[in-house]
Amino acid sequence: MKHFESSSGYWASWMWRAIQLAALADGCTSPNPLVGAIVVDSTGKLVGEGFHARAGMPHAEVLALAQAGNQAKDGTLLVTLEPCCHQGRTPPCTEAILKSGISRVVVALQDPDPRVSGGGISFLRNAGLEVITGVLDREAAYQNRAFIFRVKHGRPWGILKWAMSLDGKTGLPNGASKWITEKKARNWVHNLRAKCDAVIIGSGTLRHDDPLLTSRGKSDPEPLRVVLTSSLDLPSNAQLWDITKAKTVIAYASDALKDQPNQFPAGPERLKLNSTEPIELLNALGAKDCNSVLWEGGGSIAASAIKQGCVQEIAIVMAPKLLGGSASMTPLSDLGFKSMDEVIFASNCYMKQLGEDWLFRTVLY
Amino acid sequence: MKHFESSSGYWASWMWRAIQLAALADGCTSPNPLVGAIVVDSTGKLVGEGFHARAGMPHAEVLALAQAGNQAKDGTLLVTLEPCCHQGRTPPCTEAILKSGISRVVVALQDPDPRVSGGGISFLRNAGLEVITGVLDREAAYQNRAFIFRVKHGRPWGILKWAMSLDGKTGLPNGASKWITEKKARNWVHNLRAKCDAVIIGSGTLRHDDPLLTSRGKSDPEPLRVVLTSSLDLPSNAQLWDITKAKTVIAYASDALKDQPNQFPAGPERLKLNSTEPIELLNALGAKDCNSVLWEGGGSIAASAIKQGCVQEIAIVMAPKLLGGSASMTPLSDLGFKSMDEVIFASNCYMKQLGEDWLFRTVLY
Repeated sequence: MKHFESSSGYWASWMWRAIQLAALADGCTSPNPLVGAIVVDSTGKLVGEGFHARAGMPHAEVLALAQAGNQAKDGTLLVTLEPCCHQGRTPPCTEAILKSGISRVVVALQDPDPRVSGGGISFLRNAGLEVITGVLDREAAYQNRAFIFRVKHGRPWGILKWAMSLDGKTGLPNGASKWITEKKARNWVHNLRAKCDAVIIGSGTLRHDDPLLTSRGKSDPEPLRVVLTSSLDLPSNAQLWDITKAKTVIAYASDALKDQPNQFPAGPERLKLNSTEPIELLNALGAKDCNSVLWEGGGSIAASAIKQGCVQEIAIVMAPKLLGGSASMTPLSDLGFKSMDEVIFASNCYMKQLGEDWLFRTVLY
Repeated sequence: MKHFESSSGYWASWMWRAIQLAALADGCTSPNPLVGAIVVDSTGKLVGEGFHARAGMPHAEVLALAQAGNQAKDGTLLVTLEPCCHQGRTPPCTEAILKSGISRVVVALQDPDPRVSGGGISFLRNAGLEVITGVLDREAAYQNRAFIFRVKHGRPWGILKWAMSLDGKTGLPNGASKWITEKKARNWVHNLRAKCDAVIIGSGTLRHDDPLLTSRGKSDPEPLRVVLTSSLDLPSNAQLWDITKAKTVIAYASDALKDQPNQFPAGPERLKLNSTEPIELLNALGAKDCNSVLWEGGGSIAASAIKQGCVQEIAIVMAPKLLGGSASMTPLSDLGFKSMDEVIFASNCYMKQLGEDWLFRTVLY
């Protein structure tokens, strides 16, 4: 065994490959995390690769070890997340690792799941394997930020998206808003939806835009389409009521039923909440296996979601257009700030061009 | 004489130098254009350089020829703008060129001033000199876009600037707006002011912000500070009333005087207009030798200026902050658009980072 093989620097380039493999299932694994794995044999040759494709399907380690077969003996397994040591829908990965004859395991990130959380690593060390941890741990944590957030907080990671003009408008004074951005940016939004487990709007956006809210087939299944409504004042016809392409959920508070007893369309699922506060909804969606949600409503629901800690990340598509106009079509309603010292500062803002438009992304926390 | 010297491609690199020289006086030459000149001797050696520093000072060609002296004989003069052939505050440049013994003149841009407009070029050709035109003409026209616009339209080139948050707000709901952007961006705005002949606000911004509106000494003289007021409802104390650092102009419509007869503070100049429409003001400032103005007022004056063709260029500084809030603090009031097909599209938008903030610039026409 060469000395440099024990250094985390040597393993980082292999770990990048494991992270890339994990990314192939982005948007498909919830409630599970994204995981990628690599097996390198004792001579430094790649002999197995795998990634977790979907909940209930085999784990990344098991697939990589299966591909490596006998060549795994005395080799190294690299995995982006600590191998599990508990029986879930599939047997514990730690057992498969022992059986394979692997002599070293390199782990990027300790599993935040309390059922694992260091237990897998201890198990392997106790069994006599060398275990190296923390290789590209920050990158792996970023990749699984939604999963980690849900495990810690019980609710999904929230992404807030809006499209606006150069003068910060999300629509004209008369409400016209189709389309502010061009095709390439809209396509990017479809990709973003594909990576989320649910897309949320309010009933105002539903009535005003009658949106489709799908990824246009970029993910299978499509993300849940959620209408959060306090009034239950729903239109009788809407694209969202057709659930052949994607599921729809109507989230409402129980007391709204008294006023609007027969307002539910036939197709969508009903989700009764104690209140229609954003955090109530996210707690319920966390319980429905959602790791991440995309807020696509108007300025009022967006501001409420921010105020309740339901937005961890923001994506803004800005079109090089001047719309002009009044209050109604603005990305965020009042956040309650009284001084510039209180406002939210997005210190790690990232920008790129999307055709004619511009994309700003930032992780708030 | 080598053949390639007659091609415009050969002369482009020298012309870049002339354009760079011209830029040294950016913001100082109004009502005159920016002009730079180079003399290259018959062996291809640089022997003279000059730029027009200020109205009433020598022209670029004269300075470059004076520096070249006898070495100008049989050489080439490159100049960013067609040499003048009329007696202004200084003698015609065409005469100085003939006297110098120059055999070739390379011109970027024909002078849009009707007193010159091709006359200088014809004069030199008639006198037997070779004249090459159109070398970097687009670049030279861009550099002198403000001068060209004023010569053609009689009013200055208008630049509209605003600072906003990621959610398109120019202030908090309670009016707090100092500071949205960080120091580097504010410094950039001071540089922008230094390149303009006047900075315009409305009386609302005056009362609300009490701004200084100078370039902080980056230009001498400082740009004119203009308050456009229909009400003449002016504060008794304001930083703008102290004219020791920079001149101030109060632009008002004559009928406002009836209601507010004694509202003028002591220092500022008074500019009586037929109305306080942006275009009335710009026509008056054009007559006062302004090539360019910077609009720094609120959303209402900005929207009026756009609607009246008084904005040719926009500079937006965007801070990575979330402010939230209502209508009042928005970059542009209603522009009257009813459909997305009507909105202004800034096709040539340019973006760069300014420290923590982001700068968007665009020329509209």
